[in-house]
Amino acid sequence: MADQRRRDLAAMLYPFARALVAAELPVLARHELNMWGYSVLCALDGSPARTQAALAQAINADKTRIIGTLDGLQRDGLISREPDPADRRARLLAITPAGRRVKIAVQAEIQANENRILARLPAGDRRAFLRVAETLADLSPDEIAGL
Amino acid sequence: MADQRRRDLAAMLYPFARALVAAELPVLARHELNMWGYSVLCALDGSPARTQAALAQAINADKTRIIGTLDGLQRDGLISREPDPADRRARLLAITPAGRRVKIAVQAEIQANENRILARLPAGDRRAFLRVAETLADLSPDEIAGL
Repeated sequence: MADQRRRDLAAMLYPFARALVAAELPVLARHELNMWGYSVLCALDGSPARTQAALAQAINADKTRIIGTLDGLQRDGLISREPDPADRRARLLAITPAGRRVKIAVQAEIQANENRILARLPAGDRRAFLRVAETLADLSPDEIAGL
Repeated sequence: MADQRRRDLAAMLYPFARALVAAELPVLARHELNMWGYSVLCALDGSPARTQAALAQAINADKTRIIGTLDGLQRDGLISREPDPADRRARLLAITPAGRRVKIAVQAEIQANENRILARLPAGDRRAFLRVAETLADLSPDEIAGL
């Protein structure tokens, strides 16, 4: 497998992934969301209500850093924050029906562009690529660094 | 292909690719290279001598931004800069034998780590993933954004 003739994986994937993220920005702007807001909606969609700490961990964000984002999402009616019955100091976050509609609309646009790109690939390669991407996305930074 | 249940490609690949890049930094530091220096060596290895303008374009860098990097690589004997016989104002860059040895050593370490990660995958998926990564890496930002 030590094939020096392939390019480095990082050199192939990093510019591509960065360009994909850049392509999301106008979609998010049209829906008046920023990247953190979209990440929050994705993390809350289809999951049970979460504490702010659990949410921050799920999206790899600093807990204090996303407070402004959560305030904005709540103000826009996209998420709710209710006291946690198990811990009165904590609040549970959940996506609202309006939040879910926005998330679905944004994701449909984002994935439509991604699917346009993936449509260049043979179907078998496309399926394998997505399967591998799911596996690699679940690795921790330490696993990727070999620590 | 509009499968809302998959995660966004950007959300899967961007953190993974960023962590791969981060994993390269200690390797580069051990060889006293920075990322631009390594990119330059990779672009010059196995290619005919290039002008600074062509090199900058190949690695997606600003022409003036890499001058310091080129100075350092030349001082360390890893690249040469000779006047271009076709254009006396331009200089042609080439990798030296010492530069090639450093590039090969660094790339072997980087790809050994990448291969450790890829070894988790079934062989067919791994081959398909690398094939697709090569294809996607050749897309321009405009093609990725659908412009």
